[in-house]
Amino acid sequence: MSKEQQLSTEPYKGVRDFYPEDWAKLQYIFDTTRTLLRSNGFEEYNASPLERSELYESKTSEEIVNEQTYTFTDRGERRVTLRPEMTPSLARMVAGKRRELVFPLRWFSIGNRFRYERPQKGRLREFYQVDIDIVGLPGAKAEGEAIVIAHKILSTFGAKNDDFVIRINSRTLLNSACDALKLSAEQTNEYLGLLDRKNKMSSETFETERAVFRRNGTDPLELIEAGMNESVTSEQEKLNGLIQAFRDRGMTNVVFEPTVVRGFLYYTGIVFEVFDTNPENPRALMGGGRYDGLVSLFGGDMLPAMGFAFGDVTLIDFLITHNLLPKNLTGAPDVFVGTPVESDTPKAHDFADTLRADGLNVLVNVTEKALGDQVKEAVRRTIPYFIAFGETEASNGKVMVKTLAESSQEEMPIDEISAFIKKSST
Amino acid sequence: MSKEQQLSTEPYKGVRDFYPEDWAKLQYIFDTTRTLLRSNGFEEYNASPLERSELYESKTSEEIVNEQTYTFTDRGERRVTLRPEMTPSLARMVAGKRRELVFPLRWFSIGNRFRYERPQKGRLREFYQVDIDIVGLPGAKAEGEAIVIAHKILSTFGAKNDDFVIRINSRTLLNSACDALKLSAEQTNEYLGLLDRKNKMSSETFETERAVFRRNGTDPLELIEAGMNESVTSEQEKLNGLIQAFRDRGMTNVVFEPTVVRGFLYYTGIVFEVFDTNPENPRALMGGGRYDGLVSLFGGDMLPAMGFAFGDVTLIDFLITHNLLPKNLTGAPDVFVGTPVESDTPKAHDFADTLRADGLNVLVNVTEKALGDQVKEAVRRTIPYFIAFGETEASNGKVMVKTLAESSQEEMPIDEISAFIKKSST
Repeated sequence: MSKEQQLSTEPYKGVRDFYPEDWAKLQYIFDTTRTLLRSNGFEEYNASPLERSELYESKTSEEIVNEQTYTFTDRGERRVTLRPEMTPSLARMVAGKRRELVFPLRWFSIGNRFRYERPQKGRLREFYQVDIDIVGLPGAKAEGEAIVIAHKILSTFGAKNDDFVIRINSRTLLNSACDALKLSAEQTNEYLGLLDRKNKMSSETFETERAVFRRNGTDPLELIEAGMNESVTSEQEKLNGLIQAFRDRGMTNVVFEPTVVRGFLYYTGIVFEVFDTNPENPRALMGGGRYDGLVSLFGGDMLPAMGFAFGDVTLIDFLITHNLLPKNLTGAPDVFVGTPVESDTPKAHDFADTLRADGLNVLVNVTEKALGDQVKEAVRRTIPYFIAFGETEASNGKVMVKTLAESSQEEMPIDEISAFIKKSST
Repeated sequence: MSKEQQLSTEPYKGVRDFYPEDWAKLQYIFDTTRTLLRSNGFEEYNASPLERSELYESKTSEEIVNEQTYTFTDRGERRVTLRPEMTPSLARMVAGKRRELVFPLRWFSIGNRFRYERPQKGRLREFYQVDIDIVGLPGAKAEGEAIVIAHKILSTFGAKNDDFVIRINSRTLLNSACDALKLSAEQTNEYLGLLDRKNKMSSETFETERAVFRRNGTDPLELIEAGMNESVTSEQEKLNGLIQAFRDRGMTNVVFEPTVVRGFLYYTGIVFEVFDTNPENPRALMGGGRYDGLVSLFGGDMLPAMGFAFGDVTLIDFLITHNLLPKNLTGAPDVFVGTPVESDTPKAHDFADTLRADGLNVLVNVTEKALGDQVKEAVRRTIPYFIAFGETEASNGKVMVKTLAESSQEEMPIDEISAFIKKSST
């Protein structure tokens, strides 16, 4: 085939290929999160990334629907969208089996989401996200549980309270301040939009734009800070109580932040985000809030719901920044079994099966290379341990275990290998 | 919101929603397969389901490209396809890092594939598939390893040799028989296509259609059976040797089946499929073969490659048919911790964290229901164990563990709960 006809090895624009060492990092964060969530009584669900387009056209951000989705028409003239987020699918599924499900639901889902954006740093067209939701639990209990889980997730990766801050706000509080100043519904939305963009603009621009919303010299944020309006103060006290409850549980990194809005229009109460405290990585790691109206878009009464999500890229950046990502996430097996001569292969396979039964991941040499070259191959494959297995080892039941990173080796009986390797790897 | 404006709760046509009890079954087959493959030295990779359309237009079946893909044009006028299968993405990724990778590769990937077909039983527009490939290993070693792995996967789910049969054929053998009869390349492809469709037509139709390919009263299949042509016999002997090697290893369910072709045009050598022996489920569970030419479509020399795949629907049907799917795959937690009175909740949370540290998945009551109603809730949630935790339990360190399916209960110290539940659940 000529050069001209060669196919390109590039992936589609804005998406990633995951070679084993890349995928091992994602698997690590998915597995760690899944284990923690299941341990806390959460159940995993999933849906197809193909959704009917109408699902995104009623209550989600218009920017996303019009500018940022992959939407196309299938041959049956159906409009199909690649899901840009999971919450509408969750609401659809909950509504679909509302009479059979036992509430409150504690559900999570791990998968890819798609946004048609100009590719830039940290902004991919496909990214992975973990979505965590509590549906059917009213009042502050769901907020309590969701924010505790957010804290537990980062803690299980080894993060400490001073590595991140949980910023909480309340749409109800913001709305009550806007109401007190008699802003219209449209002006309220515009004001929330301004707060949402605050970190992306200079403080001068922010001050200029907020001036539009001042009534008698006060804008809603200033009204909240002043603490002089009764209904606003009442909302503020509820939020303070919630924050104090977290602090009493040792979550000293939970704070009130009146500018937190989170983009989506469907939020109705508490909103929160988790921010990296490292000034080099000033990004929201997690975000979410209460969205009591979403499930009832499919019919029936309002159903209280609270959820949050985090993406693979920002979490991995956070773990790297705080030196919390394990070094040995290569996807490679644990042991390379070498064969002194090719006729040792069947014995080596049996030996490998013994190690596998003990829970080790084992590769057996299939080449005719000399043992020294097999060791070199194991190193290139980033396999941490090498064990040659031939006539001698089969007859005396002892092997030499080479720890390749340390260029050290130790002789031991076959039934001690697994414990030795598991101990050394932790 | 009026009835007319209500959003539908149906998923997009031909795709599935996975509620927790559905997803638990998929997770079980993915986790079991992943553990086995990693244990055998395989590494997991992944790619985006969005691929450039040209990837499917050179060597894959034309039917798939023209009739069965989701292909659309993005706003940058790029043609994008939702991957209908994984092998082209694998070949692209291997070619892209050909100089850095250490061969042979043993790679697998688990994910969704998309086909734009009329939805019918077992034919969904989105299905999950496990793809397993060995790249860079020439000769019969890769065939040997791949088919052993296929056998190991089904064995690890509990299947016995008489539950399934592995049917092996060789494209080289079929081609040599077609060559011996001087069929043109086009006629050879047509003949292979006829064999591929054999099980979907009556034997009369098959006999009528095969007549076209007879030369001197013999068609390629009859030539193979007659064993009179030297080059055909030589290919047949290679294949027999491979099959005998499997049978010597105890894989007595490996057989030669000259009509096995597997659809894809890119196969170049051995092809095989795994068939359910139960006459009620007469379907191929797994299929694959050698495709030495695929990686070099991206440039460079031919690279030996051998792979196979299986789908979620057919595997789960197989496991159900043979009574091999565990009954307890519900996605529900292991333990429901009940609270005699609401003020017990903080203690109950601490108790739950103790059980979680022992590896149990635990839900704590958050309602104000009476204990009896909490037990009923646990049953409805299909949670197998119920433990009430209040003042009494906290002070004497003993709890009553209810096994809900048996309506039995047993008192024990807190530190024995985890061992009791893990033992009872296996």
